[in-house]
Amino acid sequence: MSTSLINGASATVIPISDRAFQYGDGVFETLRIVNGRATLWEQHRRRLLAGCRFLQIAVDEISLAQEFQQLLAGNAPNGIAKILISRGSGGRGYQPPAQEAPQRILQFHPWPDNLDLPAGQGIRARLCKHPLSRNPALTRYKHLCRLDQVIASAELNGDIREGVMQIDSGQVIEGTRSNLFLVVEGRLTTPALTEAGIHGVMREYLLQQFASAGVTVDERAVTVSELQNAQELFFCNSVFGVWPVTELELGKQVVRYTIGPRALEAGSYVEDAFHKQN
Amino acid sequence: MSTSLINGASATVIPISDRAFQYGDGVFETLRIVNGRATLWEQHRRRLLAGCRFLQIAVDEISLAQEFQQLLAGNAPNGIAKILISRGSGGRGYQPPAQEAPQRILQFHPWPDNLDLPAGQGIRARLCKHPLSRNPALTRYKHLCRLDQVIASAELNGDIREGVMQIDSGQVIEGTRSNLFLVVEGRLTTPALTEAGIHGVMREYLLQQFASAGVTVDERAVTVSELQNAQELFFCNSVFGVWPVTELELGKQVVRYTIGPRALEAGSYVEDAFHKQN
Repeated sequence: MSTSLINGASATVIPISDRAFQYGDGVFETLRIVNGRATLWEQHRRRLLAGCRFLQIAVDEISLAQEFQQLLAGNAPNGIAKILISRGSGGRGYQPPAQEAPQRILQFHPWPDNLDLPAGQGIRARLCKHPLSRNPALTRYKHLCRLDQVIASAELNGDIREGVMQIDSGQVIEGTRSNLFLVVEGRLTTPALTEAGIHGVMREYLLQQFASAGVTVDERAVTVSELQNAQELFFCNSVFGVWPVTELELGKQVVRYTIGPRALEAGSYVEDAFHKQN
Repeated sequence: MSTSLINGASATVIPISDRAFQYGDGVFETLRIVNGRATLWEQHRRRLLAGCRFLQIAVDEISLAQEFQQLLAGNAPNGIAKILISRGSGGRGYQPPAQEAPQRILQFHPWPDNLDLPAGQGIRARLCKHPLSRNPALTRYKHLCRLDQVIASAELNGDIREGVMQIDSGQVIEGTRSNLFLVVEGRLTTPALTEAGIHGVMREYLLQQFASAGVTVDERAVTVSELQNAQELFFCNSVFGVWPVTELELGKQVVRYTIGPRALEAGSYVEDAFHKQN
């Protein structure tokens, strides 16, 4: 069963006046809970607080940390936790209020079996039609305005587990709920997030792990036609970890990939993050 | 006092699981109510329904119209009404649920005196630093993801009533809660909304009125330097109508404008919309 806390108290509703509801005025994080502990907690915490600072939302960090422990203590050992910080109610239309009362909304969802892939099995994916919004000022923050991802997700279905999103110039950026890596001409590559997209926690973690292992990752603009010639393609996020792609629909064309050494290496780093570091 | 209806019933809260709260998954309209009637209702209704169709949210139009009448009947004759359509709860993360239960949230706020400018008085405005997100696929819909407008509004204050927003290429698009018109080399001009921004109801109405009066309006890309050389500058939206700008802060520079014939003409069309058409 899913449970929720608002500012530490069990709750299921928020006021209509809440600015997250009215304007998407806030930030969030989604974390994988393994054996009662949050994977990559420090990285999630850092991004959440950076977003609050950017938006000038004065979140109470100490209460947040306590309430997060309270959430984990009161739920199953494995699942998904979501932290949502809203600016709260008030203000004149878009303009934030002088006296803010930010809301800390913490939710726990039991682990959904369908996120774990059978060993060695990849997924089918699709190039989405809906373009990502471009705004270089926002790529470091996981804010609540996620309509692009909702629209693109509606292009998927049970069989097509993830989608590749591009900006309207045809540059490939990320998945609908993940970042992506590919191997092009033998080089591990990930789209640069200077124009659009979100700097994902798992992406940053994998970049660090590959760097520590002496593997160079090219961060640069990636085109759709490079997807056609790639040797490997995989998505990553901090909940499902790494999903290698075995089939990608590009319009009427289907591109096939094998699950290669870089995806396997990324998968082993993810296992470390999920288990050994706990 | 503000009042709210959810699906026709008086209510002040929504579930945390609502997708408008979680993702900004919905659309809204803000309308000026004059003598118990909604200004430019048909235009607002059309944009709202276009947004629902685009997002594949099956809103119940008949109930919506009835509930809107109920809202107006139960409140003061003059004020601001907001209609917010959310996709409701459910789905797998971003992915919308197969069975949707869209929510119709209607709110009424008494008319705030500070929105009416004393006759003949303009406002001070500022060029905002925060750039607008660019997405050609979204400019026809007033969706709930309004974080750019929130961030830019935080750059204003009581004295600076509105801000000009640009995209990161330096192209001027609109106000934080309005569209804008300017007179450049004698020609009435409004920024084209092909890259970013929202096609405002009042902007569309003014374009029609000017066309009927035989006044050509150039819809095209507008640069910041054109703001410096403009003879007139005014904002419009469907709540405050037309706000002529008398001073615009461009960084450390201040550009001054007189309230010219085009702003006055727009103001008279707005009066027609607010009063005569009711």
